[in-house]
Amino acid sequence: MRTILVIGIGAGDPDQLTLQAVRALGRADVFFVLDKGPSAADLVALRRQILDQHLVPDSYRIVEAADPRRDRDPGNTAGYGVAVDDWHARRAELYERMITDEVPEDCVGAFLVWGDPSLYDSTLRILERVEARGAVAFDCEVIPGITSVQALAARHRLVLNRVGGPVTITTGRRLAEDGFPPGVDDAVVMLDAGTALRDLDDPDLHIYWGAYLGTDDELLLSGRVGDVGGSIARTRADARRRKGWIMDVYLLRRDPPPAPSP
Amino acid sequence: MRTILVIGIGAGDPDQLTLQAVRALGRADVFFVLDKGPSAADLVALRRQILDQHLVPDSYRIVEAADPRRDRDPGNTAGYGVAVDDWHARRAELYERMITDEVPEDCVGAFLVWGDPSLYDSTLRILERVEARGAVAFDCEVIPGITSVQALAARHRLVLNRVGGPVTITTGRRLAEDGFPPGVDDAVVMLDAGTALRDLDDPDLHIYWGAYLGTDDELLLSGRVGDVGGSIARTRADARRRKGWIMDVYLLRRDPPPAPSP
Repeated sequence: MRTILVIGIGAGDPDQLTLQAVRALGRADVFFVLDKGPSAADLVALRRQILDQHLVPDSYRIVEAADPRRDRDPGNTAGYGVAVDDWHARRAELYERMITDEVPEDCVGAFLVWGDPSLYDSTLRILERVEARGAVAFDCEVIPGITSVQALAARHRLVLNRVGGPVTITTGRRLAEDGFPPGVDDAVVMLDAGTALRDLDDPDLHIYWGAYLGTDDELLLSGRVGDVGGSIARTRADARRRKGWIMDVYLLRRDPPPAPSP
Repeated sequence: MRTILVIGIGAGDPDQLTLQAVRALGRADVFFVLDKGPSAADLVALRRQILDQHLVPDSYRIVEAADPRRDRDPGNTAGYGVAVDDWHARRAELYERMITDEVPEDCVGAFLVWGDPSLYDSTLRILERVEARGAVAFDCEVIPGITSVQALAARHRLVLNRVGGPVTITTGRRLAEDGFPPGVDDAVVMLDAGTALRDLDDPDLHIYWGAYLGTDDELLLSGRVGDVGGSIARTRADARRRKGWIMDVYLLRRDPPPAPSP
């Protein structure tokens, strides 16, 4: 039986790998790398740096593949869900071919996932589709990893929830479409292309923002949206222009409680 | 200047420590341990196992302290918030004393936190209070750790969010008081003393449950609440009786999407 490992490798700092992830790297015969877009070259290099740190250089095999492009044609009126579904279907075909061709029976293939495979990552969904297609059988193991949310919280020394309170993790798209979720005081926003950040209209929200967390390029800013919102948007745009891509995340907090009395 | 490290050590599996956490353990001169209640002995032993795995045994110093008890008197009508605030104030006094007495200038003290310091853990809040009191100065560094939420997701091979959708993390107390959050399809429930789980009244919710995640005692169950809810409640009660304590977490999912067509 083939084994497929889905390994969370943290948000960017190679030291945020777990011991379990390091051990899992050692079990893999082949690594699949499917980055895309302007960040691809940098992210592949970061992955190779992680592999070289823990494995004998050149002892491992990497298979790079071009991830199918998602249909972002605004003329496609079928909507976001259908476009993503179609994209996942094409990726499932690709993953099936890679597993069949590159992972011999009784061997181990690994997908290296930024952050944690359980949060805004499609690898597990695609592998489920591959299993449902029934053409290739494999065991699948998931190794959790530190997310950018956790890296953000650590750098700002944040507790995400209030005492006994809930916390919502959402996307820039949702925030831009639906606004700040009702009944929520603390929302982490991921996958924002910058538009939701630009359109924040409550100056009294507090924002804790971070980009390229855990890397040498790390950026951190925080404060009242009315005071720092513009500066964050400019910093973000500048960094994106300079580097060609950006990965960022932020916490929005409504009405922070007053500092505790000593 | 003193340094205080707040180190996330994962949900129970010693292999879920990050390399960054292992390095941080090596920097600390003294470790503070403040477990309480029936789980204390087991959790202290697990921490010692982690320290002995990465440090020279007997080379490090542990300071154990009795965590002040929280006022859980139901006759206390001031309510949950006030009781927690008072409890935190008493803990701040204790932490201040421990840091002053046990961490000499230019030395490093460490708090080992289960899961991640950013999620339902009060260490950072207490340290903020200690700083606000102004009696002892220190630098504070936070090292993120794998949470039980991530361990749960990995073992069930779950993606917590739907495609582009939000996910809410909440507490058993909130769920019991307010019911399933409005507009939410995916909610992770932490810190449930078992009552919210017992009172789930929608048989069509799906639940993915785990206890003692990452340890030899790990328990995993999942399915439709109408089918497995009773069995999870019984398994939980039995385990709690047998072991004297339980730590568990679950994802509730409304109306799971149909399996992808091949």
